[in-house]
Amino acid sequence: MTQGVFHLDDRLAGDGHRLTRWALSSVLLMDDANYPWLILVPERPGLHEFHDLAPGDLMAMSDEIARASRALQGLFRPDRINVAALGNQVPQFHVHVVARFAGDPAWPGPVWGAQPRKPYGTEALAERAAALKATFAAC
Amino acid sequence: MTQGVFHLDDRLAGDGHRLTRWALSSVLLMDDANYPWLILVPERPGLHEFHDLAPGDLMAMSDEIARASRALQGLFRPDRINVAALGNQVPQFHVHVVARFAGDPAWPGPVWGAQPRKPYGTEALAERAAALKATFAAC
Repeated sequence: MTQGVFHLDDRLAGDGHRLTRWALSSVLLMDDANYPWLILVPERPGLHEFHDLAPGDLMAMSDEIARASRALQGLFRPDRINVAALGNQVPQFHVHVVARFAGDPAWPGPVWGAQPRKPYGTEALAERAAALKATFAAC
Repeated sequence: MTQGVFHLDDRLAGDGHRLTRWALSSVLLMDDANYPWLILVPERPGLHEFHDLAPGDLMAMSDEIARASRALQGLFRPDRINVAALGNQVPQFHVHVVARFAGDPAWPGPVWGAQPRKPYGTEALAERAAALKATFAAC
């Protein structure tokens, strides 16, 4: 489980833009302008499930989920934050933290599979990434 | 946030069967025979989002998610465990922990909204509840 070297899954790397690294996780911005959408990927090799996290990493995981959630709340004032570790498509353990709005393209259903991904475009992606990084610094 | 008395949301109470209470959460079995499906509801009044959990409750939350996940893994040997706090329909904070199988009625999509709920029936519900309680005792 803890053998080997962490390598970010190719699909996560392809769909997301890496914003920063926290104590445990890489923090990605999902390149989907439909929803403000972060993905946390604990940088531990061989993780698949929540219960694979070492006891010492469980606290960091919940802290980082709360931090991502607070950042989205602060920046976007959404109606709801969705938090999910699914992994039906990408086996590497990762946690989605998504700001949801009544009336967004998937509301009130889940976002996964609801809409084709809508890339930001270079300028909008850079702007959003900068805003998120500034918000992380404050929470 | 911490004022008032905890009262389990009526819809959660109606769709689920209460199995036990852990240090933080009520543990419900979702009455849906499509998937082995637990719901953890932290017994704190006024919680809506993951980041509403008090720092002292975050560790208990992640411990209890891991425990529910281990129990489903041990009992059902699923292909994947899905963990999610959505709340787009029920505002009271609650965490789904669902055992997923390649080929289950929603695979590889998310379970929420995929299929009408399929109640167990009295005998099957009692049997599943007993198996889960026995498994909780061991993990």
